[in-house]
Amino acid sequence: MRQQNVRTLSLVVCTFTYLLIGAAVFDALESDTETERLRIIETVRQELLGRYNISGSEYKLIETVIIENQPHKAGPQWKFAGALYFVTVVVAMIGYGHSTPETVGGKAFCIVYAVVGIPLGMVMFQSIGERLNKFTSVIIKKMKKMLGCTTTEATDVNQLCVTGTLSSIVMTAGAAVFSHYENWNYIDAFYYCFITLTTIGFGDFVALQKENALTTKPGYVALSLVFILFGLTVVAASINLLVLRFMTMNTDEVKAGDYEMQD
Amino acid sequence: MRQQNVRTLSLVVCTFTYLLIGAAVFDALESDTETERLRIIETVRQELLGRYNISGSEYKLIETVIIENQPHKAGPQWKFAGALYFVTVVVAMIGYGHSTPETVGGKAFCIVYAVVGIPLGMVMFQSIGERLNKFTSVIIKKMKKMLGCTTTEATDVNQLCVTGTLSSIVMTAGAAVFSHYENWNYIDAFYYCFITLTTIGFGDFVALQKENALTTKPGYVALSLVFILFGLTVVAASINLLVLRFMTMNTDEVKAGDYEMQD
Ligand SMILES: [K+]
Ligand SMILES: [K+]
Repeated sequence: MRQQNVRTLSLVVCTFTYLLIGAAVFDALESDTETERLRIIETVRQELLGRYNISGSEYKLIETVIIENQPHKAGPQWKFAGALYFVTVVVAMIGYGHSTPETVGGKAFCIVYAVVGIPLGMVMFQSIGERLNKFTSVIIKKMKKMLGCTTTEATDVNQLCVTGTLSSIVMTAGAAVFSHYENWNYIDAFYYCFITLTTIGFGDFVALQKENALTTKPGYVALSLVFILFGLTVVAASINLLVLRFMTMNTDEVKAGDYEMQD
Repeated sequence: MRQQNVRTLSLVVCTFTYLLIGAAVFDALESDTETERLRIIETVRQELLGRYNISGSEYKLIETVIIENQPHKAGPQWKFAGALYFVTVVVAMIGYGHSTPETVGGKAFCIVYAVVGIPLGMVMFQSIGERLNKFTSVIIKKMKKMLGCTTTEATDVNQLCVTGTLSSIVMTAGAAVFSHYENWNYIDAFYYCFITLTTIGFGDFVALQKENALTTKPGYVALSLVFILFGLTVVAASINLLVLRFMTMNTDEVKAGDYEMQD
């Protein structure tokens, strides 16, 4: 079997094993809390049904109305500042889902917008990330020269350390800022920053959703957008190093493979 | 100014312009529907307060309980099948947020898990995507030979057409499947597939959340996971072509820049 096929296959096996292990751990960590929560839901539902004499079907209706309107509870999301927050979250592929298009036109435009915006955003983040890597490599070389090292090359490992450290600083500093503005505890704020900058974007914690922040605190809106864009750049620089290096390595081998096939 | 700096700067300007335009369009598309919804919320709230004689603070409590417990409404999410769905959604960076860790241990493990899992997943998707591109290029060459073309090279544009078409097929076919299983209209189902395979993952539509599908329909669970993993591979193949080509082009120039600096 060709070398790249073997590598791809081992990656698939690794990833699936990793997924199975992860599923087992989360099952162990979260299942008990969840069972407890399901019990609470039932208790509360029964109590409400009894106390206010609500029928089962009416409770379902109330539940639906409250959940459907949840995104709107935090105040208007589609005035300009909110819409800007939304498109940033789309182009960066974070997708909190704190507010999503309700109209058919909005959904269709969202698809068209993302088809162009995502490649544009990816290329931009990678481009800035690559510039950042260039900049750190120059700094590393100068530092090594100053320290009188025998080799003044900036290796991949050197650079990965620098951008990795920078990513951690952005996350820990960001966590402090958001825990202050959003009244989250530090762990939750760090979790928010991590989930945002890895572009997972669960949406269980979303900045700018309290006290009409989108309309009343323009400074904080700007700060949040800058955090997302700058943070993603730094993380993109790390990922640029980690993954791109692997991918181009792979591409080189493919070219070698091409010659093999032509022989 | 150096050529790469100019390019990076123009990308930044392009992206910001694109974000501003997008924000204006979404504002125009969604703001009216939203105002209407906010009015409905208020009407419903007033009606409930009146009909059941609920106090304002008690309504808030009910609202909080219902919203907090929303992820648990769809049945257990953390038994093995659900946990596997969750970790797949994390590693692929989709992050629907339909269920998220509630315990501190779960959140901490989620961070550690993602730090390893995301690069692993990215490398795997890119690796399979690259193999797929290789495969399509061989097919294209054979087709061109059969058709008696003067040049039998598979160009980037040829390949991008093929993987682009393949992506569209996966999405339209996936939309049909999910619209059947989830009782969504076709547009919503297509929107779900698109938002999933671009890894935006809003979570406004999430498969496997009806009728305890996670525990009662193992076949459908497997189908959904395969759709996500296979779909992402095809999309990764397209992105691999689109972005990687740009990035390596950029890297080559950086190398040229290095020599400049050493002169
Ligand atoms: K996401
Ligand atoms: K998401």
